[in-house]
Amino acid sequence: MSQIRPAASETGDPLLLTPGPLTTSRSVKQAMVHDWGSRDAAFIAINTAVMEALPRIVCGEDRYVTVPMQGSGTFAVEAMLTTFVPRGGKVLVLINGAYGSRARRILDIAGRATVVHETAEDAPPDLAEIDRLLSGDAGISHVFAVHCETTSGIRNPVEAIAALVARHGRRLLLDAMSAFGALPLDTREVAVDAIAASSNKCIQGVPGLGFVICRKEALAETAGNATTLVLDLHDQHAAIQKTGQYRFTPPIHVIVAFHQALQEFQQEGGVAGRGGRYADNARILTDGMRALGFETLLAPNLQAPIIVTFRMPEDPAFVFQRFYDALKERGFVIYPGKLTVAESFRIGCIGDLHAKDMRAFLDTAREVLSEMGVGFVPAKAA
Amino acid sequence: MSQIRPAASETGDPLLLTPGPLTTSRSVKQAMVHDWGSRDAAFIAINTAVMEALPRIVCGEDRYVTVPMQGSGTFAVEAMLTTFVPRGGKVLVLINGAYGSRARRILDIAGRATVVHETAEDAPPDLAEIDRLLSGDAGISHVFAVHCETTSGIRNPVEAIAALVARHGRRLLLDAMSAFGALPLDTREVAVDAIAASSNKCIQGVPGLGFVICRKEALAETAGNATTLVLDLHDQHAAIQKTGQYRFTPPIHVIVAFHQALQEFQQEGGVAGRGGRYADNARILTDGMRALGFETLLAPNLQAPIIVTFRMPEDPAFVFQRFYDALKERGFVIYPGKLTVAESFRIGCIGDLHAKDMRAFLDTAREVLSEMGVGFVPAKAA
Repeated sequence: MSQIRPAASETGDPLLLTPGPLTTSRSVKQAMVHDWGSRDAAFIAINTAVMEALPRIVCGEDRYVTVPMQGSGTFAVEAMLTTFVPRGGKVLVLINGAYGSRARRILDIAGRATVVHETAEDAPPDLAEIDRLLSGDAGISHVFAVHCETTSGIRNPVEAIAALVARHGRRLLLDAMSAFGALPLDTREVAVDAIAASSNKCIQGVPGLGFVICRKEALAETAGNATTLVLDLHDQHAAIQKTGQYRFTPPIHVIVAFHQALQEFQQEGGVAGRGGRYADNARILTDGMRALGFETLLAPNLQAPIIVTFRMPEDPAFVFQRFYDALKERGFVIYPGKLTVAESFRIGCIGDLHAKDMRAFLDTAREVLSEMGVGFVPAKAA
Repeated sequence: MSQIRPAASETGDPLLLTPGPLTTSRSVKQAMVHDWGSRDAAFIAINTAVMEALPRIVCGEDRYVTVPMQGSGTFAVEAMLTTFVPRGGKVLVLINGAYGSRARRILDIAGRATVVHETAEDAPPDLAEIDRLLSGDAGISHVFAVHCETTSGIRNPVEAIAALVARHGRRLLLDAMSAFGALPLDTREVAVDAIAASSNKCIQGVPGLGFVICRKEALAETAGNATTLVLDLHDQHAAIQKTGQYRFTPPIHVIVAFHQALQEFQQEGGVAGRGGRYADNARILTDGMRALGFETLLAPNLQAPIIVTFRMPEDPAFVFQRFYDALKERGFVIYPGKLTVAESFRIGCIGDLHAKDMRAFLDTAREVLSEMGVGFVPAKAA
């Protein structure tokens, strides 16, 4: 093992090359070293600033409102599906990975009817098939799509999907989780009723808060749809509108950290700046891993700059757990695969990670592969 | 206004004399200034330690298991009710405040049948009436009770309720939220299927995590009961048992802070030490406020040492908002009332608050009342 010090974040932690929770700045975490009352004016002002900032990221500040949801991103997705889809509604669920499948499971449990269009994990949905399904079933009220399906890292064509859904007069519900803040999404051009995301992805906050950015007119139609108390976005919104306060204890520290993270996001230049850095990270990572002999799962035109899936090498000297553990010892946490189509692992490009970190990762990966005796690693450039 | 510096916590924040989120120690919050991967062994070990510590607090480590629930205490209560009560079950809901009413609303929305026994906010449930209701309706499968109803601060007689429920062969579900860790609860003597609480009450963590301490045999019977994905405690437990990991992103920083808070709870002597300090706080507060001329809502034998409700004085010079604001300026955050029976306000005794803080609060309250020209304030002792 090398004698160099492990890589570390500002707070001395391993760098998280994962789809989140991810490496956040010290200042984001430091914002949590205070206490606030949940009904206190200072906290309410911070929360209001957060809620108002989010629709601006999708150019929707005039027509959209944020409804926060305690818990995690999946809590926000379940809240979105069970609030927006009436009990008699029917959802066309677009699936090409675990998050699409999870939405179907949520709808099944909640007793909402579904139709599924499933494609392989490395393939986007087939627009012609969506068109055919919508044409053939007037009962489909909503379409559910995932912007970046973290299972593979694929970027789904939400603009084209939204146009098709609008042409058929149906409603789009979007799981934007790992894409929100990094991939552009302009609600002036993309017709969408609700967008679910969370605090611990590309805005670079800590985990504990989901949120749904809701088209105001669509949210107003959802009274009485929900089949739970805590996940009812209409009720949550009504209470916050009335009092500024949450119905149930909010994760105050998480929200204050998210507020700091949003300020840092704006300082970096919003979606263009943040997404640009991630695209640089992804390019450095992908080029470097290819130079080491790895293959990516996805064609470049399908790859989002969020998380990259690599096929497991066939060389028997490559044992993933050893690779993972040796990288972890040296300060880099990567991510196991979740594919059903192929053996794979994943490396994330998001969080407080910069070009130098990606290069340091590649140097370390080369070192580890060499120690493992993996044959396909080319010699280090002189 | 006095020239003295406002009271402040270790981190310079106003002292929260509220039912939570509350004042926590600096060390609890400082534990959050790191990042962890959610699948990382270090985080999983911390989470496991937290989950194993909680049943010990109710003497149930052999027969009970903790199932965490992202969100807040109410998320845990809804998860408990909708996981433990089958779709054909019926719940006798004991109500003497807002938290009992909230449980009924959760059950109504989830389509579970209820029977209600409601008493005034300053009165415990009537055991003879519970006995009569259980005798008369064999369809009642569960009884729901609140240990300390924060609406008033009343301590409900859970030991007697549990004995009655057990005698009738029914199951008890307990909302222990603001009592957990401060009021003794021994599951070797109190028959209860599930106990819901949260990170930000008497264990003195930060908000963002609920949990349900479940009797293992009862939890095993709940497969398929839940009507949501995210709030399904059976599914959550099964996944954590299998992999050590949460199904959906956990609030990592909140859990790490809770781990630190649990260590500080043990260092203070567990329930005896923590509950003892709160009882001292409550006694100092109540004696001092009575000396200032205030009246408590509850008879001493009904009062839990968690939060004390005071009747609004009749003196027209006493304007609650002025009292609240002046105290806030001087570093003390108190709590509005939630009673329907009488005008009132509340002062909490929990969190990182000590005898000296309660005395400082009383001195400040005396000063504020004097400035407001409230007539009933006796002269300060020489």
